[in-house]
Amino acid sequence: MTSPHGREPLTIAQIAERAGVSVATVSKVVNGRTDVAPRTRALVEGVIRRHGYRRQKKAADPAALLELVFHEVNSVYPFSVFEGVHRVAREHRLGVVLSELQGRHTPGRGWVEDVLARRPIGVIAVFSGLTDEQSGQLRTRGIPFVLVDPSGEPGHDSPSVGANNWNGGLAATRHLLQLGHRRVAVITGPEHALSSRARLDGYRAAMDMAGVPVDPELVRVGDFRIGSGRERAGELLRLPDPPTAVFACNDALALGAYQAADDAGLRVPDDLSVVGFDDLDPARWTIPPLTTIRHPLTEMAAAAAAMVVSLSRGESLPRNRVELATELVVRGSTAPPRGA
Amino acid sequence: MTSPHGREPLTIAQIAERAGVSVATVSKVVNGRTDVAPRTRALVEGVIRRHGYRRQKKAADPAALLELVFHEVNSVYPFSVFEGVHRVAREHRLGVVLSELQGRHTPGRGWVEDVLARRPIGVIAVFSGLTDEQSGQLRTRGIPFVLVDPSGEPGHDSPSVGANNWNGGLAATRHLLQLGHRRVAVITGPEHALSSRARLDGYRAAMDMAGVPVDPELVRVGDFRIGSGRERAGELLRLPDPPTAVFACNDALALGAYQAADDAGLRVPDDLSVVGFDDLDPARWTIPPLTTIRHPLTEMAAAAAAMVVSLSRGESLPRNRVELATELVVRGSTAPPRGA
Repeated sequence: MTSPHGREPLTIAQIAERAGVSVATVSKVVNGRTDVAPRTRALVEGVIRRHGYRRQKKAADPAALLELVFHEVNSVYPFSVFEGVHRVAREHRLGVVLSELQGRHTPGRGWVEDVLARRPIGVIAVFSGLTDEQSGQLRTRGIPFVLVDPSGEPGHDSPSVGANNWNGGLAATRHLLQLGHRRVAVITGPEHALSSRARLDGYRAAMDMAGVPVDPELVRVGDFRIGSGRERAGELLRLPDPPTAVFACNDALALGAYQAADDAGLRVPDDLSVVGFDDLDPARWTIPPLTTIRHPLTEMAAAAAAMVVSLSRGESLPRNRVELATELVVRGSTAPPRGA
Repeated sequence: MTSPHGREPLTIAQIAERAGVSVATVSKVVNGRTDVAPRTRALVEGVIRRHGYRRQKKAADPAALLELVFHEVNSVYPFSVFEGVHRVAREHRLGVVLSELQGRHTPGRGWVEDVLARRPIGVIAVFSGLTDEQSGQLRTRGIPFVLVDPSGEPGHDSPSVGANNWNGGLAATRHLLQLGHRRVAVITGPEHALSSRARLDGYRAAMDMAGVPVDPELVRVGDFRIGSGRERAGELLRLPDPPTAVFACNDALALGAYQAADDAGLRVPDDLSVVGFDDLDPARWTIPPLTTIRHPLTEMAAAAAAMVVSLSRGESLPRNRVELATELVVRGSTAPPRGA
């Protein structure tokens, strides 16, 4: 675990020295034993909070575990993440314990206790974050954690891996502008999702750089689900001067836009060009196949797993935040506007 | 673990008595220790093979693990299975270790060693099976395993959970016949998959009971992937007397049939009715939404997890094979044939 102050974290012996207690006492605290006086425990935990704790390097344990926790798994989304984590776990012979929080954004009390009982080498969390208490509990036991952060929430101390959402929004919108579209709409994710804000800002930047004013009517807030894609796109298509192209801030919204086009008797891409974001499997199954921005979820997850492995060995990370590139994948859902 | 002969499995003390060795020796064998003479080990393992071994009941271990191993996870398919296992694991405070075999149908040597090192309360395998040696290794350690068996492979001794594929094939085909279709085609999975054979037989039974002869031209072998669905459906639509309806033996094949219809300038369901099998998420996303057979994967997985938990407690199972019902879900991809 890197120290909050950027210095090397302490060994058990160094913590014992600073706290003025025995090595055995520190060992009890970091192993979660209950036979330590509360004051002594607080003293030891204070030293660990200030300086960090480096778990002893051990011979590779064939039963070693890595924890992967999802916000929710009822989508095709987590598989790309699992693939990346599993790839790194296999190299290091780590078992991957998968859990999900059923949509709660912060894991409940039971979750962290079960994780501590399993004593994993580290935790990878795919959601907004842990509470301060939970991060504290992991830190005190020397269990490193890294956030895979597709929602793009920064501002936490924990190491994290994200993607360049702004560049993705820029590339999606530029592609539509280069095809000749001028009435380019955008359907965003929920307003609290920073990933969605960054994609929207990329859209605005592309429009601005092309000298095309953004019509506020063409900016619609969705929630990253197919139903809201259908509703928002339906509203757009019923405008007196409807868009000829839509940048949907994820693939589910794009599928919803396909449905809205079908509802209106329009064809993609002849009557409406659609660009998505994520490049999950369904993007290749749609008719026509979806032009989208590849979100490198598998690589992000593999990077997070490699970071956790490094931290568990007491190595420090070259950087606390890793951001991977997104890229435009052109398929069949985009074409020049009619009459262009 | 139930005994292969249906009798109660033995405790360590009973195994020691029958093998004429000490309790400590049996304990070493079942814990995978190496300091036991090969002959003695063989003797103890022989008793366990013949009579089964019942692990001592322990106080619930907060770090207890359940292993879930997939043939491959690069599809939307494993989610439904994970959901079911996780639901039961949560009730019993079990961590779920997820691994995948990257398409190999039998886990490699390293996999079983890593599983043994983690000492899970049990293993749920979602693929054709384990080798005899691997089942032997799990059995000797008193680690129960249950197969979730979407491919429908019976004939192994291990407890398993499947679905009624034949009934599903029957219901899909009857639905098309009741709409008035007579030229009803079927696209199957690979010939070695028993689940696909059972679905095909359900199709044949429905046709036969309706007095509609099966035209061999209308029976095509696919491989459960979208690409083969597109190819086989394309061939069907180019026949001099093409079908007006297709029963695709899984949802991916059905998506391929949608693509083939689009390639041929035909509309679903106006020109071609399509029924799938599985009812995975994409079935609701397609245009039109897919009529399909619900494959109760989540419930199958939950049943398998409950069976593993029972076995790990030394309880015997009321039955070794559980088969859950499938059911027809009518959406927008089926309609009467033109002119009917």
